[in-house]
Amino acid sequence: MRIALLGGTGDIGEGLALRWAYDSDHDVIIGSRDPEKARAKAEEYETELDSRGLERTVNGFDNEMAADRADIVVLAVPAYHVGDVVEHIADVIDEDTVLVSPAVGMSRDDEGMHYNPPGVGSVTALVQQKAPSEVPVVGAFHNLAADRLANLDVEFDLDTLVVGDDEDARELVVGLADDIEGLRALEAGGVANAPEVESVTPLVINIAMNNDGMHDVGVRYL
Amino acid sequence: MRIALLGGTGDIGEGLALRWAYDSDHDVIIGSRDPEKARAKAEEYETELDSRGLERTVNGFDNEMAADRADIVVLAVPAYHVGDVVEHIADVIDEDTVLVSPAVGMSRDDEGMHYNPPGVGSVTALVQQKAPSEVPVVGAFHNLAADRLANLDVEFDLDTLVVGDDEDARELVVGLADDIEGLRALEAGGVANAPEVESVTPLVINIAMNNDGMHDVGVRYL
Repeated sequence: MRIALLGGTGDIGEGLALRWAYDSDHDVIIGSRDPEKARAKAEEYETELDSRGLERTVNGFDNEMAADRADIVVLAVPAYHVGDVVEHIADVIDEDTVLVSPAVGMSRDDEGMHYNPPGVGSVTALVQQKAPSEVPVVGAFHNLAADRLANLDVEFDLDTLVVGDDEDARELVVGLADDIEGLRALEAGGVANAPEVESVTPLVINIAMNNDGMHDVGVRYL
Repeated sequence: MRIALLGGTGDIGEGLALRWAYDSDHDVIIGSRDPEKARAKAEEYETELDSRGLERTVNGFDNEMAADRADIVVLAVPAYHVGDVVEHIADVIDEDTVLVSPAVGMSRDDEGMHYNPPGVGSVTALVQQKAPSEVPVVGAFHNLAADRLANLDVEFDLDTLVVGDDEDARELVVGLADDIEGLRALEAGGVANAPEVESVTPLVINIAMNNDGMHDVGVRYL
């Protein structure tokens, strides 16, 4: 599979890029609004992989070119950019592209982080609304411990939850998640169930803020 | 400590009653709208504990009498009853009573369960609004796997999240949770953070519904 990580220069994008490149044979493509930045990060990831004896090609492009080359497009951008990015790539994605939404709308106050989804109910639902109707949309990779994900020296044993209305697309993303060592994908139903999945992200940040030694906490359902 | 479990005849109430009686020296009092039902359940729990060689007295009363006798009052009733129950016991609780709220407002549709809090933002916030202002309120024990909790043959290794604006009360409840073997309490901040904690309950139900072998799933943050 060719996986484009739009916003692949950010923390979750970096972790997913490195892990897929390290743990699987999938082609990893980095997308950014700024193609120079995408190329620089892609080279950085190649160097990181090379230092572990793994010769992998990671390419960087602007978001539209990255999406155009991919089977799977992960929207690893902040929640408030997601709608614009989907509109920007709409012409180059079709029913053979799976759009994956890991972003979460949050607000912060003195108490901590709060779930603050767009009016349509969730970022995943927003992506579904903005994307061409034939493009399957899946929510996944929301609540990962970003620093641990991006650090290949750290083994992790965490779960990610997958939601989506298209069963084939959902199962494809479950498989991609399981390709990352130590990551287990669980299904949580359709896009209507995305709010409960997304709101675990502010929750784990609040747990990290209120308990010693839980800086970069993840979740296991068992 | 004397712990009253209002709604102690239901599943979460049963599990907490049995575990505290089995794992700690706390006095356990069962409350119900119907005092006969409370007494019958209390006897059932005594028999269960006795069958494991543990002679414990568990008393049953109507909710108001149970609350009047307790240092800790756990509102283990359905979300839509919580407000009425708090009003019903308001005269017998004061600043020396800690009110604990484990209930979660949910709605169900074809996709699964959805978080559906009262207008004030969470059941925990509703309890705080309805209770006399001097009574400290803590949200906890929302997302426990009820069948495993009530089955003393099952060891579990799960977390519960604790929220509350009164630090002393929060720490007291953290201690009570830690008194149950295999249960770990983590702090998640003030009552403003209760929605993200409560919404894990519909989430774990959706996970149970969508994955084989996860009938009674709980959560570990790690």
